Amino acid sequence: MAGELQDKFKLTDAQRLDWLRLFRSDNVGPRTFRMLLHHYGNARAALAALPDLARRGGAQRSPRICSREDAEREMEAAHDLGVRFVALSETHYPARLREIDDAPPLLAVRGNASALERPMLAMVGARNASAAGQKFAERLARDLGEAGFVIVSGLARGIDAATHRASVATGTIAVLAGGHACIYPPEHVDLLEAILTQGAAVSEMPVGWEPRSRDFPRRNRLVSGLALGVIVVEAALRSGSLITARLAGEQGREVFAAPGSPLDPRAEGSNGLLKQGATLVTEANDVITMLDPIRGRPAPMAEVAEPAAPALAAESDDADRSRIMALLGPTAVAIDDLIRMSGASPAAVRTTLLELDVAGRLDRRQGLVALV
Amino acid sequence: MAGELQDKFKLTDAQRLDWLRLFRSDNVGPRTFRMLLHHYGNARAALAALPDLARRGGAQRSPRICSREDAEREMEAAHDLGVRFVALSETHYPARLREIDDAPPLLAVRGNASALERPMLAMVGARNASAAGQKFAERLARDLGEAGFVIVSGLARGIDAATHRASVATGTIAVLAGGHACIYPPEHVDLLEAILTQGAAVSEMPVGWEPRSRDFPRRNRLVSGLALGVIVVEAALRSGSLITARLAGEQGREVFAAPGSPLDPRAEGSNGLLKQGATLVTEANDVITMLDPIRGRPAPMAEVAEPAAPALAAESDDADRSRIMALLGPTAVAIDDLIRMSGASPAAVRTTLLELDVAGRLDRRQGLVALV
Repeated sequence: MAGELQDKFKLTDAQRLDWLRLFRSDNVGPRTFRMLLHHYGNARAALAALPDLARRGGAQRSPRICSREDAEREMEAAHDLGVRFVALSETHYPARLREIDDAPPLLAVRGNASALERPMLAMVGARNASAAGQKFAERLARDLGEAGFVIVSGLARGIDAATHRASVATGTIAVLAGGHACIYPPEHVDLLEAILTQGAAVSEMPVGWEPRSRDFPRRNRLVSGLALGVIVVEAALRSGSLITARLAGEQGREVFAAPGSPLDPRAEGSNGLLKQGATLVTEANDVITMLDPIRGRPAPMAEVAEPAAPALAAESDDADRSRIMALLGPTAVAIDDLIRMSGASPAAVRTTLLELDVAGRLDRRQGLVALV
Repeated sequence: MAGELQDKFKLTDAQRLDWLRLFRSDNVGPRTFRMLLHHYGNARAALAALPDLARRGGAQRSPRICSREDAEREMEAAHDLGVRFVALSETHYPARLREIDDAPPLLAVRGNASALERPMLAMVGARNASAAGQKFAERLARDLGEAGFVIVSGLARGIDAATHRASVATGTIAVLAGGHACIYPPEHVDLLEAILTQGAAVSEMPVGWEPRSRDFPRRNRLVSGLALGVIVVEAALRSGSLITARLAGEQGREVFAAPGSPLDPRAEGSNGLLKQGATLVTEANDVITMLDPIRGRPAPMAEVAEPAAPALAAESDDADRSRIMALLGPTAVAIDDLIRMSGASPAAVRTTLLELDVAGRLDRRQGLVALV
């Protein structure tokens, strides 16, 4: 394992630039990044290997690799905004976020980064929240802030904004769906400035990235991933807040919900969470009591590449690859089944899948893979 | 055991009059009634024994025994209102209510008594309910009525009234805190008439009894006792609805609650119940699903006098009685401790306690006894 993956290892500027280039290259998501780093030992070697990997994975044309110049340009833009990149392998990377298997390899942080080292709680809810919902969110965020929690939310209108405002003084984190140069919604630029005094804004997207609608659900995994638990206040059915709650459950986070009238459509989602076993919250103490046993427990400081990135073969074997490819199609299949049915070694299967990943031909979802 | 206690035994008119006299005599509550019946075999013998029992229990003056004339007068008044008395030992006595250890020996029933033989659900809530709360109660009562449940409530203003109104067509039971001749609140006399077409009104109190405030909490045990479960809609802290929910829990009934905004004081009690494990209800199906496994199960048709009325001594022994009396005081003590510490037989202790009961000198609460 390369030194890059050791605990307390601070990247050099050159290494950080390589990490940024690798992360910004086509088809390199957080999971693929980890596997590449694990296999090639460092980001520079992985960058060099990308074209061959993609070719073996059957890419029609070589995927775009982020150039040194583009990465330097983003670094400069970040610097101008006061944004720093914290790497997954560094000690200041948020401890809970590091636990999730698709944690961003680099987190762009603006503001008071030390807030990310305190225990965090996420609060999310409806953009079209009622006055009562916003008032309740304010009260809860203020009380939880005073109890020592940093409050994480998504900078959206409604519950998110009420939550941030009430915890500006005690520390709050805004998780952006776009880059730091593209604050959405634009009317929250002032709120964000206030947030940055004690708290921070974080993003995994390129600094100049305009958020699109599909970026919001992906962003939500960071909202829950940073925190010990997620509190849902006023969420309708099929809302983004319910996505955050689902991700929180998958990440092993506590899920809390505020109750609402059965006649209020804005409470259907939160009441539904309560039926599924979320903890009912009417005051800060309901949350504090529940989290007391885990609040002080440090997050496991796992070696970054394990267990999400098991061993790969040095290079894939053509015969193995054809047997594996023959088993793949548009219908998702479990990786375990693929290993069993192909007769290839687990390392060979993983290598072939990584090649398909980098070629942009693979869809991975919860242990299942399919060709796209 | 006397024939009176056999299943499917219908009382004669003379027996029913004796039951009514015994139940209406001073210091004879539902539990004492059962013990007396168990010990003396029938109500007439128990009536004859009351003066001696009370004297041995240390009554200053003999407790009032309901005269034959008074009982006949109540029977006539009941008859004029179309009210019939159903005895605990009779087959038409509501099956679930019979399970509770302080079930009234006689239940005065007006209206369609067959409604009491169908599965019942209680709904209770705030008198000063919000429009939304009343609307929700109506919807739930209508849907549960259509699903085959008879809806039990307390004829109060607010949630109770909304609940009854919405289930008039499918069958609803009003449990009165006073007698059938004293409907409270008076403006619900018309609602009660509507209730009686498919459903019924029930009371354990004398027909002409004006309800006092202390009668309402006692009445609440019948609301929950009749039903498979209790649904609480909009209950403030320290409300009668919470008393009903607590009694329901003690009686082994399911407790359901509708969620409400954390900022609404009218929802504090119901949200509190949810925190304590009540089942969250936003629609009829939440209740139906929960009760499905027990809905069709017949209530156990236990021999009436067991296990609430264990054996008594034929007559108490003076030496036993003094030892037991020396241990009793204004501080409540467990009956088991009394048996152990007095060295008297369980039957002797129970007999002495029954004497104190009938003398009006004993306070019994959940297995504890104290002198009053």
